Amino acid sequence: LVGAKGNDSEIDELIARLRDGDVRALARTISLVENGRPGFERVLSQLHRRVGSAHRIGITGPPGVGKSTLVERLVRAYRGRGTTVAVVAVDPTSPFTGGAVLGDRVRMGTSSQDSGVFIRSMATRGAAGGLAITTREVCDVLDAFGFERVVVETVGIGQSELAIGATADTAVLVLVPESGDWVQVLKAGVMEIADLYVVNKSDRPGADQVVADVSDMLTILRENLPAGAAHPASWNPPVIQTVATTGDGVVELIDAVEEHARVMARTGELEERRRRRLITHTRDVVERLLRQRVWAAWNGQQRLAEGLERVAAGETSPYHLAAEIIDAGLGQGAD
Amino acid sequence: LVGAKGNDSEIDELIARLRDGDVRALARTISLVENGRPGFERVLSQLHRRVGSAHRIGITGPPGVGKSTLVERLVRAYRGRGTTVAVVAVDPTSPFTGGAVLGDRVRMGTSSQDSGVFIRSMATRGAAGGLAITTREVCDVLDAFGFERVVVETVGIGQSELAIGATADTAVLVLVPESGDWVQVLKAGVMEIADLYVVNKSDRPGADQVVADVSDMLTILRENLPAGAAHPASWNPPVIQTVATTGDGVVELIDAVEEHARVMARTGELEERRRRRLITHTRDVVERLLRQRVWAAWNGQQRLAEGLERVAAGETSPYHLAAEIIDAGLGQGAD
Repeated sequence: LVGAKGNDSEIDELIARLRDGDVRALARTISLVENGRPGFERVLSQLHRRVGSAHRIGITGPPGVGKSTLVERLVRAYRGRGTTVAVVAVDPTSPFTGGAVLGDRVRMGTSSQDSGVFIRSMATRGAAGGLAITTREVCDVLDAFGFERVVVETVGIGQSELAIGATADTAVLVLVPESGDWVQVLKAGVMEIADLYVVNKSDRPGADQVVADVSDMLTILRENLPAGAAHPASWNPPVIQTVATTGDGVVELIDAVEEHARVMARTGELEERRRRRLITHTRDVVERLLRQRVWAAWNGQQRLAEGLERVAAGETSPYHLAAEIIDAGLGQGAD
Repeated sequence: LVGAKGNDSEIDELIARLRDGDVRALARTISLVENGRPGFERVLSQLHRRVGSAHRIGITGPPGVGKSTLVERLVRAYRGRGTTVAVVAVDPTSPFTGGAVLGDRVRMGTSSQDSGVFIRSMATRGAAGGLAITTREVCDVLDAFGFERVVVETVGIGQSELAIGATADTAVLVLVPESGDWVQVLKAGVMEIADLYVVNKSDRPGADQVVADVSDMLTILRENLPAGAAHPASWNPPVIQTVATTGDGVVELIDAVEEHARVMARTGELEERRRRRLITHTRDVVERLLRQRVWAAWNGQQRLAEGLERVAAGETSPYHLAAEIIDAGLGQGAD
């Protein structure tokens, strides 16, 4: 694993500065990883041994449910307990997104001198190898740097947000009393989404109904639990009511996150989940590298352009061309 | 491109029946494609020449905005104009999903004898090679079968729903007066999402505000239009107000879809979009085949299992293992 020609020493220096706890080096490393610039895999590979201390918390939900305010409350509460915490905002509407780190810190109500907090926004477009894998790698960097908790904020309830949520040790889904339609989607999918459910803005009418609906969904899930399911009987996802603007319920939320972490550690589920995440990640890394190699071997080549022309002209099908490319490309790529 | 040993003749028979317009063969083919069962690529490759007559309409939006009712109205209106139409529901909350085709037809208010309508739901989990590519292929089958319009209904506004929407010739995003938060997400992403915007349930308060917000967003988009953007000056996405339950605005919607199709055809944008879709699809097919080959060569092998053990034990990194696998696997896979 080498960087671009000549930048190996830069990469080594960056790694050394990271080990010294240099926050500027941290920011630079995240940019390197986010943009997949030369040497990023070398850095990640070097940091790999140091990954595994941080507890990762995913906060996901539709826009307007108050995720950012909740994250802000969580950060303050963690700092109040002396725990260091990093935030990765993948949500384009998050107030953390696009803001300067300093500005964010002030907004978070913690001292700008507080090195126990770090906030970073991710571009939701252009993540070279896919948002899920890149987010996981940014979390790896923050984990290796030494943060005790890493919070990832994502918006939406789509397939891709779930993939990002799978980054987490503890996945939190935030809804509001008006989220009944989303609960129907969750029920219809009968899928396991989160370890903790939050009904924020619970001072509004309808909160009890959404709490009841989510609880119903969880009952259905439990009754249909396949053998070897991710939630053993040892953990029943709680539904927590919060009002992030006033802070109501935030202590219950943070306690539930920490309790989930403890139960997961005790039952071996945390280790198992991290093992599965590592295997998924390795597969994703393999596939990313594979794509890069094959397209690098083929892009710009007359043969690929001609092949696509033939497909466009209806002379061959994508399926025949794919077989052609791979039969030729696999041999070439190995050179 | 061969199927599993021995099923080539079955596949050939299926293709022959498809050419005869056999609806049961159509349903079987879609299942084959959806589940990536042996021979599916052979069928798709055979049908490839017949793809390209259907106009594809993507209908996307958050749950509860009335997408299914709108689709039902669209289908009835198309049938009233003598146009054949197929519906692919990727939305797990859609009333079309999970229902029998016959039941759906009755519910749609069209005759169960009407062979000009076909409705199919897609499983949102387990689509072997990813939901976007599989949905595109199911649309290819319906297109090749001869339907004049293919409507794809998806739920959510996530990255994956957008990828599915990219299947469409005309992408429609449906919102309601309560969707202000989603408009903020769209604005924050400053991304091009749809060719047509619908504000459904426009008899409710707040409709004008959402229409104004979406129009603002479109103005911002236009002002930031990169050279060679997908929307040339020839098409300004309209914002259409509908009340699907009463049918208000449905004629305007269908007229706008057809107008979009005409403008796209006239300016060459339709051909260009389909060409880009075909290239994207070919790349996706290559990558799917690549994954299959490499993992087929490696799965079950002691060497992969050992490698993952070494990663899990912290003895190597995913990045080193990936390089190892690919260096060895690329050579092997070409056998």
